[in-house]
Amino acid sequence: MNELNPHISVDCVVFGFDFEKLNVLVIDRGSNDTSRMALPGNLIYNYEHLDEAATRVLEELTGIKNIYLEQIGAFGDPLRAKKQSDQEWLKSIRSEPGARVITVAYFSLVKMADYIPHASSFAKVASWVSVKEISLLAFDHLEILSAAKDTLKQKIKIQPIGFNLLPEKFTLSQLHRLYEAILEKPLDKRNFRRKIQKLDIISPLREKQSGVPHKPSQLYKFNKEKYELLTKIGFDNFGF
Amino acid sequence: MNELNPHISVDCVVFGFDFEKLNVLVIDRGSNDTSRMALPGNLIYNYEHLDEAATRVLEELTGIKNIYLEQIGAFGDPLRAKKQSDQEWLKSIRSEPGARVITVAYFSLVKMADYIPHASSFAKVASWVSVKEISLLAFDHLEILSAAKDTLKQKIKIQPIGFNLLPEKFTLSQLHRLYEAILEKPLDKRNFRRKIQKLDIISPLREKQSGVPHKPSQLYKFNKEKYELLTKIGFDNFGF
Repeated sequence: MNELNPHISVDCVVFGFDFEKLNVLVIDRGSNDTSRMALPGNLIYNYEHLDEAATRVLEELTGIKNIYLEQIGAFGDPLRAKKQSDQEWLKSIRSEPGARVITVAYFSLVKMADYIPHASSFAKVASWVSVKEISLLAFDHLEILSAAKDTLKQKIKIQPIGFNLLPEKFTLSQLHRLYEAILEKPLDKRNFRRKIQKLDIISPLREKQSGVPHKPSQLYKFNKEKYELLTKIGFDNFGF
Repeated sequence: MNELNPHISVDCVVFGFDFEKLNVLVIDRGSNDTSRMALPGNLIYNYEHLDEAATRVLEELTGIKNIYLEQIGAFGDPLRAKKQSDQEWLKSIRSEPGARVITVAYFSLVKMADYIPHASSFAKVASWVSVKEISLLAFDHLEILSAAKDTLKQKIKIQPIGFNLLPEKFTLSQLHRLYEAILEKPLDKRNFRRKIQKLDIISPLREKQSGVPHKPSQLYKFNKEKYELLTKIGFDNFGF
């Protein structure tokens, strides 16, 4: 009875940070043609919850598991899977390639270094790609990626972000660069530092970087209690 | 060809404010049994966009149109339509009552006085009901209502709210009461006024209330430019 539901799929936008730029996890469906790159996604099973499906599909295609996926929303353009290149690919893997499929998108933020993708199932390659370098994806995945970026930008206004994208110990420059990468604009360094200090979400360690070719920087860690509080209640700067 | 898609529905959470409490638009499917109350919702057509479907369904069931509906997300518990009372009702109106249906939920904020619902189609009654008085709804609509309330609470942290829920001219007390109703908690009056003034989203009019049994209060209107700017960019209090 637990068959694939031909009408509903899930797609995952998993963001990772490499200290320089924001990356996203993509799969290649088996060609060098870049139009074949896609977000990891597939149909749900008939008796499966949407959240469960997202977790399962991500692991099946990329080997990545144990991450928190948050729903972004549903995407249901009637023509979203009707491009010829997508139809050809669907014919090779689905029993009802012409069926209208609504997809439910999820997103996540992870420490890139901890998640090395391993392609399996119909994914021939699974890899981290710089978000900025992506100009073409299968189906409506470019639109989904864009919505995920917007969600991230909104989130950063009301919640602290970084804990899931940085190592336990990090420098202020790394945190600064992360915010710039998410907001896609340069941020004044002094201003940024002042605001972060004011939020009280990081604490300095009695430790500096080691093995770097420049003057080692002070290391920080997140102030867990304050960070979790702000994650839960939000910055709530308006004060209500 | 344009048939109903038996697998996907849309549901609308339309909030209205009556100067006292937050209300939501519900339909009654034709019984005095309160468990028959539901959010206005129905299946989408095969070739219809999700947003279009939400607009159409809301108008078909309640007569309410020309409002901006924003997607909250998809709800897909495999058992969401399997309660006996819901199944009985579905059997009376759908060709595939047992099919698994994923619903995509939308929400909106409107001036209650401008929108008098008129029930039609399978809705026997369409009416505004105080959100606080709702303890039972069809399907998973209570969960959807709760998600819509959460979305509203999040939104109020990053964007000004009220323009769509208040008349053109309003008092500070009315705005204060609106924020209390949305946040579901009392807010200190002086603190609230100070913060609203600081945001610079309202301007005093050379006019006071008339025909009220108490000392008439100063009337205000929204500062349209500032309001729209903050709606677009958000409070952005963190300063990025």
